[in-house]
Amino acid sequence: MVENKAQADIALIGLAVMGQNLILNMADHGFSVAAYNRTVSRLDEFLSSAAKGTSVIGARSLPELVAVLKKPRRIMFMVKAGTAVDELIQELVPLLEAGDILIDGGNSLFTDTQRRCAELGAKGLLYIGSGVSGGEEGARRGPALMPGGDARAWPYIKDIFQAIAAKASDGEPCCDWVGQGGAGHYVKMAHNGIEYGDMQIICEAYHLMRDGLGMSSEEMQQTFSRWNSGPLDSYLIGITADILAVKDADGSPLVERVLDAAGQKGTGKWTGISSLDLGVPLTLISEAVYARYLSAQKEERLRAAEVLKGPESRSEAGREGLVTDLEQALLAAKIVSYAQGFMLLREAAREYKWELDYSAIASIWRAGCIIRSVFLNKIKEAYLSNPDLLNLFMDSFFRETLEKCQPAWRRVIVAAVQRGIPVPALSSALSFYDGYRCARLPANLLQAQRDYFGAHTYERVDRPRGEFFHSDWSNKGA
Amino acid sequence: MVENKAQADIALIGLAVMGQNLILNMADHGFSVAAYNRTVSRLDEFLSSAAKGTSVIGARSLPELVAVLKKPRRIMFMVKAGTAVDELIQELVPLLEAGDILIDGGNSLFTDTQRRCAELGAKGLLYIGSGVSGGEEGARRGPALMPGGDARAWPYIKDIFQAIAAKASDGEPCCDWVGQGGAGHYVKMAHNGIEYGDMQIICEAYHLMRDGLGMSSEEMQQTFSRWNSGPLDSYLIGITADILAVKDADGSPLVERVLDAAGQKGTGKWTGISSLDLGVPLTLISEAVYARYLSAQKEERLRAAEVLKGPESRSEAGREGLVTDLEQALLAAKIVSYAQGFMLLREAAREYKWELDYSAIASIWRAGCIIRSVFLNKIKEAYLSNPDLLNLFMDSFFRETLEKCQPAWRRVIVAAVQRGIPVPALSSALSFYDGYRCARLPANLLQAQRDYFGAHTYERVDRPRGEFFHSDWSNKGA
Repeated sequence: MVENKAQADIALIGLAVMGQNLILNMADHGFSVAAYNRTVSRLDEFLSSAAKGTSVIGARSLPELVAVLKKPRRIMFMVKAGTAVDELIQELVPLLEAGDILIDGGNSLFTDTQRRCAELGAKGLLYIGSGVSGGEEGARRGPALMPGGDARAWPYIKDIFQAIAAKASDGEPCCDWVGQGGAGHYVKMAHNGIEYGDMQIICEAYHLMRDGLGMSSEEMQQTFSRWNSGPLDSYLIGITADILAVKDADGSPLVERVLDAAGQKGTGKWTGISSLDLGVPLTLISEAVYARYLSAQKEERLRAAEVLKGPESRSEAGREGLVTDLEQALLAAKIVSYAQGFMLLREAAREYKWELDYSAIASIWRAGCIIRSVFLNKIKEAYLSNPDLLNLFMDSFFRETLEKCQPAWRRVIVAAVQRGIPVPALSSALSFYDGYRCARLPANLLQAQRDYFGAHTYERVDRPRGEFFHSDWSNKGA
Repeated sequence: MVENKAQADIALIGLAVMGQNLILNMADHGFSVAAYNRTVSRLDEFLSSAAKGTSVIGARSLPELVAVLKKPRRIMFMVKAGTAVDELIQELVPLLEAGDILIDGGNSLFTDTQRRCAELGAKGLLYIGSGVSGGEEGARRGPALMPGGDARAWPYIKDIFQAIAAKASDGEPCCDWVGQGGAGHYVKMAHNGIEYGDMQIICEAYHLMRDGLGMSSEEMQQTFSRWNSGPLDSYLIGITADILAVKDADGSPLVERVLDAAGQKGTGKWTGISSLDLGVPLTLISEAVYARYLSAQKEERLRAAEVLKGPESRSEAGREGLVTDLEQALLAAKIVSYAQGFMLLREAAREYKWELDYSAIASIWRAGCIIRSVFLNKIKEAYLSNPDLLNLFMDSFFRETLEKCQPAWRRVIVAAVQRGIPVPALSSALSFYDGYRCARLPANLLQAQRDYFGAHTYERVDRPRGEFFHSDWSNKGA
């Protein structure tokens, strides 16, 4: 029932759990929210349960929704990424006027957001694509928000967004303007890619402890709890400790009853594709995506496990030392993963002409979102003290941490390799570190091969870049 | 000068070196070829030099070219992939009639070929996208050819294609019909991806020998020569031995003067993107693509090399044993790479509804192309004896080889990790092998994490697939 016209601060379309929770969060902060859902029964359900007694206004049609909004109208939607977003926009546009603001809070592909931003901008509408991270709980209590798109809209949404966002330990809201076009969704995509990486290296540590060192769930739970008070202190390490403590009905660890076939919703895949497109060696995140793919081939693995042999023996010797080493290996690999992630952002900024503030991005990620951690404070500081930092590796804190961790990191890889435990992300990260600090990679041979069979030419170390040579390599020594 | 109308068997458009060499190859085999190039001077040059005294007919316009062709007309083009192909097609179509055949022999993206095949099919024209591999030399003396597209065209081009193709040691032509639509270009793309992988693992072996074991170019040259008489016998190992023998003007090894910044033309990248799209864990090839990207950041690496530390010591101890181990590590990693490549083909066949003959594909690759090797005979045999083979790993030859090689393979990774030599492809391959044969990966923890923060639900090992559960994981043990 709509009693007063033009009273709502913002509209939210799409009442799945994320949408509902964002509405309640906004209402908590004193904003008047108009809610709409295509299936009206879900709206009724919401108004009579979670939203009961709040200021939330229900709208039963899009015209009704538009009518209750203050101008310029602010309309946020949390609907399935893809064609559903385009269809919704198409329905909304005839109801709006120049200066109205549309905000896509879903996980849209950034190129779709780029396109929509340009198309709607031509119609005088201001389009925002905003990353929203933190899952259900984040949406309700304070997510990390990464808005990008038409910068003219930012002053109109800043108050609401920064009010509902998570607050970092220093009180700063985990929400800031990211950049033009699809920048917000791109940064959210990179966040999710990094999330894939963080989860994968945790899984590899767990795998090595469980199957390589024969540790019990209790021992692993204690280990993750301990790690959560150190430099690895983060949401994902914390929930891993929680998970390991949960028992099934019969008292045995529930996590061991969970099927080892990982799902995914595509943002990690997009991150990998973008890195290939942009020429950025994003090895750790791509290995994490591939590890999910391999895990999903459960039936094939079961058949393979029967016939493919591993190393003869598995040793629990040196368990304690290896667990200590593992903490350092995780930290080092995490540095690599974030260094690669920020390399990706830097290249994307160059390609798409965004002015990304890396310190601000790290700051946004410090709370509310899935990858929140104390670690991100260090990244924030690194980019704050040097906005032109070539690479996180070159920051003194991270450089020294890598130097300190690397002997342990190498021992962990050796232990896993000898025991036949797959550590694709941990070892890929080490290869990257060893490659990055390598003045002379073997690509000289590769260039000679390309020149041999395809006359692709090569440059020389003793000549300026841009001078190209071709040799008849088959004519041995002549 | 055109003396007789309708006398040419086939037209070839685009007289860069590949196009010229294919024409000469066709002429050698008794086919009458009409040649055309947009820049006419290049045609004149060709007719008065390489093509002098041959039956090659020069055409100075597209109408003239079309006029000299027997019907149905066969027109092959070797032009730059992308818009140039579309523009050429647009110019040709009005000159052709139903049943005429267009053949794109460039490295077109398979989705472009899918589109063109459908568009031209609707106009009654038969479109072929054919992989052509083997570089300049292959084009002249016998390339590997991978034609796909409109199958009705195959009987009209089979004789020419199989005549000019390379012949395997058993006399079979390295050319067979691949499949509908973009299948030919897809298989060529996968070939190039595998080529990236083969080149990268060779580079890693070279790197470990050069910088990890302190071997001279002569010692490495001898090693690659020796390997080329064993199970690694292949074109790329052979040319590596050749390259290591070439001296610069001052008598020092020329390869060491080549800049270690790798180039690439995109097919490896496409292979990686396709694997991410299709959900196939193509780790080794992607690591190879990323290794090229990292190598290209030469200036950044030089700066990093000054400040980022590696392990304290490098040892030449056990050099001889490690070189022996390296041969087995390369063989094992190569098996992984090809196993992943054929996984990709299988998934692409499912997605795009191609009926790929994996034995035939391996057979095509046995000669003419860059990845030719004795190894491919074994793959041909594996798929011939079991067309439904789940994975190359499960074939007895490859399974036993992996089993035999894996202790050495693990020692190589350990040696590289301890010495700080990056081996991204060799170690990624081992992680994949250890993951593939793992009945229980740690993805159960990952699924629990996803259920914890996103209520994504999970399946259970003790319940049928398709039943989904959700737990309150934060409620520790309650």
